[in-house]
Amino acid sequence: MRILIVGAGGVGSAAARIAVRRSFFDLLVVADYDPDRPQRLVDELGDPRLLATRIDASSAEGVAAVVREHGITHVLNAVDPRFVMPVFNGCFDAGATYLDMAMSLSVRHPEDPYEKTGVMLGDEQFEAAARWSEAGRLALVGIGVEPGLSDVFARYAEDELFSSIDELGVRDGANITVEGYEFAPSFSIWTTIEECLNPPVIFERDRGWYTTEPFSEPEVFHFPEGIGPVECVNVEHEEVILMPRWTGARRVTFKYGLGEEFIGVLRTLHKLGLDSTEQVSVKGVSVAPRDVVAAVLPDPATLGDRMKGKTCAGLLVTGRGKDGTPRSVYLYHVVDNEWSMAQYNSQAVVWQTAVNPVIALELLASGTWRGSGVLGPEAFDARPFLDLLAAEAPHGYGSPWGMEER
Amino acid sequence: MRILIVGAGGVGSAAARIAVRRSFFDLLVVADYDPDRPQRLVDELGDPRLLATRIDASSAEGVAAVVREHGITHVLNAVDPRFVMPVFNGCFDAGATYLDMAMSLSVRHPEDPYEKTGVMLGDEQFEAAARWSEAGRLALVGIGVEPGLSDVFARYAEDELFSSIDELGVRDGANITVEGYEFAPSFSIWTTIEECLNPPVIFERDRGWYTTEPFSEPEVFHFPEGIGPVECVNVEHEEVILMPRWTGARRVTFKYGLGEEFIGVLRTLHKLGLDSTEQVSVKGVSVAPRDVVAAVLPDPATLGDRMKGKTCAGLLVTGRGKDGTPRSVYLYHVVDNEWSMAQYNSQAVVWQTAVNPVIALELLASGTWRGSGVLGPEAFDARPFLDLLAAEAPHGYGSPWGMEER
Repeated sequence: MRILIVGAGGVGSAAARIAVRRSFFDLLVVADYDPDRPQRLVDELGDPRLLATRIDASSAEGVAAVVREHGITHVLNAVDPRFVMPVFNGCFDAGATYLDMAMSLSVRHPEDPYEKTGVMLGDEQFEAAARWSEAGRLALVGIGVEPGLSDVFARYAEDELFSSIDELGVRDGANITVEGYEFAPSFSIWTTIEECLNPPVIFERDRGWYTTEPFSEPEVFHFPEGIGPVECVNVEHEEVILMPRWTGARRVTFKYGLGEEFIGVLRTLHKLGLDSTEQVSVKGVSVAPRDVVAAVLPDPATLGDRMKGKTCAGLLVTGRGKDGTPRSVYLYHVVDNEWSMAQYNSQAVVWQTAVNPVIALELLASGTWRGSGVLGPEAFDARPFLDLLAAEAPHGYGSPWGMEER
Repeated sequence: MRILIVGAGGVGSAAARIAVRRSFFDLLVVADYDPDRPQRLVDELGDPRLLATRIDASSAEGVAAVVREHGITHVLNAVDPRFVMPVFNGCFDAGATYLDMAMSLSVRHPEDPYEKTGVMLGDEQFEAAARWSEAGRLALVGIGVEPGLSDVFARYAEDELFSSIDELGVRDGANITVEGYEFAPSFSIWTTIEECLNPPVIFERDRGWYTTEPFSEPEVFHFPEGIGPVECVNVEHEEVILMPRWTGARRVTFKYGLGEEFIGVLRTLHKLGLDSTEQVSVKGVSVAPRDVVAAVLPDPATLGDRMKGKTCAGLLVTGRGKDGTPRSVYLYHVVDNEWSMAQYNSQAVVWQTAVNPVIALELLASGTWRGSGVLGPEAFDARPFLDLLAAEAPHGYGSPWGMEER
């Protein structure tokens, strides 16, 4: 297997750090618009299978050229979701398998944005599904942690725990704090604003996909391993698009444990127009307010050392168990920032995102996972994935997942 | 009387609009850094006593030169409080009487900003008081609505209503909404941030001046004439500095009816650092975050037509009445935006600020008010001021004030 990681940011770098401990691949090219970033990573890791190069992720031709030049068989897209389509298309053109952790972007409904879906997350990719199938090529989409591991949990729940599922409810929460800052998001504020202020999407089997106002249906969810209660609200997320395609769940939701404080901040930014990406004129210069917000906050990529706490990704499944009686289960994966910093020099949220596509690549390399078309993680057998995640090194990735009856 | 208004913004322009209906002056020069602004006003008002000119309010020499050129006897400072000192000094140098509506700025205590005062509002001006007294010149400071009319109320309460005063508590609130905007401040957001995030100052006779955390001592105050309950918090304001100098009140406070929503917005801006006036680098350009906030919000000067509601400035006085029994009185002045727009084409908050220095100028012109040194409105007889404010035109300014026993 010859891998190309597009994007040497936090997640792309963490994926390389995780991958070099495994033997399933022959070449790993890390590419970025700024070639110094992957070069520093390659120098740091000192693995002869690694190579750094420059790439322009906004150009399908550019991506295809790098794939061809290095005989790449598998491309992991780790750049901003704005570049999903050129990387996806360049990968198809050059004949490589494609993986990503976020799907093509949505466009809200022009008249009823908070009731009806417009262009949905991933729509552009699924439009090309027949073409990928016919060519016998695989695009494995949404294989980070959320989407990704959450979708693997959905497959596992339907196959091994439930006879029928009422709701698959992704619930994500953390108790991470950043020393020395009154307010410091642990993930890109630009992306968080994008996710949280887009109309959240919900799936119901007898109604289809529909949207609501941002921050709808708040609930306090109790997260395991000491994280405790966090206020969660509906957020637009890929799982709601993916899970209904490969499971029979009657309802699919995604709620993000933003906490009351963060929700208040996002609401205020939106109310004032500070979430806007349109340029405004400020004393003779032009800036986008959202870029100013990002500029005044500390860069989460630099805060790993100051972070304390755990992050939890998980799926609350309700329905009827294999014996036909009502059952409710929370399947989850917790990463402690102290552990991920010590083990991989990666902060928890980034590490938790990056480990999943590496496991998927290993399963594809061994032939345990195989397929063609545009497929979500639910389309594959969950058990080998979860086993590999939890198994201690050198057999696996040493990061156990958990299950609670609720 | 030959008047110079420095600054042709909202308040300066409204003062000119109010003054032209009165006969107490011979010349009114309206000056601004941009000479087109006062020229438009002069053209609009068509009063032969009016003249427009350019001024640089940051230069005491420049101010003195304009005063001398036009034989000015009285200067009304209506620019940003950052320019108080040059206008104040230029006025002294050229021998004119000085009036302002906001005093020289404070500087927080370097070690204990939320307990101790540093440089207080007006400190720089009061340092020059002996010089003004000795020269027989008058600086009448803080003669807008707050400070200004509120201080006149304090004088009135002590002279005519109370034998002893426990607390003079300024309480300012409004129910103004702006059609078509989810969030639109009715006053400069830049100044509001400055006022509200500075440590609020409180006076107690046996303790002196001290400060607290921003937004301290929240209370719901019920405002008259249909405005109703509004959440008020301590804010740094000139009255707390002025009232103790000329009254025997045991405690002086200022609480601003920001309302819960506005307080939330200001807290969030502060938490994120978006209140900062320091330049940050955003994708290659430099901007101050506070300027970006001001740029994304609508300019309140342009919103008069879309505003609805009333603004109330007032003073809650508690103590013992003239008969020695406990008494609590709220003295107040309400302006309805619809009325001020129809009568003066000025929005309510701006008109309510501007009418008071014009009344003071008329009282100085007639010799009813006289004095020398640096004096607050409390240093003058309140009754003629309040009578002139309330009397119908042509005898007065037709804007009644009110009093409620509480």
